[in-house]
Amino acid sequence: MVASSQRASILPASLFDALPLLETGEQFDTLIRRSDVHIERIVSSPRPEPVGYDQAHDEWVLLLQGQATLDLAGDEVQLAAGDHLLIPAHCPHRVLATSETPRCVWLAVHLQAAPDAAQNDGESSGSSAG
Amino acid sequence: MVASSQRASILPASLFDALPLLETGEQFDTLIRRSDVHIERIVSSPRPEPVGYDQAHDEWVLLLQGQATLDLAGDEVQLAAGDHLLIPAHCPHRVLATSETPRCVWLAVHLQAAPDAAQNDGESSGSSAG
Repeated sequence: MVASSQRASILPASLFDALPLLETGEQFDTLIRRSDVHIERIVSSPRPEPVGYDQAHDEWVLLLQGQATLDLAGDEVQLAAGDHLLIPAHCPHRVLATSETPRCVWLAVHLQAAPDAAQNDGESSGSSAG
Repeated sequence: MVASSQRASILPASLFDALPLLETGEQFDTLIRRSDVHIERIVSSPRPEPVGYDQAHDEWVLLLQGQATLDLAGDEVQLAAGDHLLIPAHCPHRVLATSETPRCVWLAVHLQAAPDAAQNDGESSGSSAG
């Protein structure tokens, strides 16, 4: 037997529960946040915001549902459900297009750069959102 | 333009490519390994090995495809595609059943315990597999 407080923490939840139907942009929901890793669900609208990201840390992204087009350092990359990639720190990226049916649902794992690696960048860090 | 070596690193791959058709047990494929986080794909057979895990670190698990039953500290937990949960460090767990059609495909993110947290355990750590 486990204590009820522990048992509550190991009940599953679904990534496809309570999907927001956004008109524009994306919604970010944190699943796990630690000092060195941040796991979030991202749900897209069919009209992504033209926001450019340039992050100080690596980000691993998995498209769980839908089809999407990303701009990665000037290259267009097409993604289908199940596709994943590692966006390196300081690789400028942007969401160009996201499907309406079904909506795009993403998993993002932000891998925080070690302090000594960040110092090697020799520049101010970009936005950590995205 | 990005150098070809950088471009190659940001080509997407699919989690559903080259799924092994196992007779028994599970196959573990590392996607990302860092000092503090390890992301892997797990593909199950319909006959999971009766291996019990008791890990020194937290593990976040997402079932991407299939249906599964886990034993978490004596509780049976049913999972469908899209379900996720955090298995706390030292929560004994085991895979009881995994569907044949479709095969279970999992994503596991191993969150390494900080050294000071691990020392608080006051016992030898369990297997880090799983």
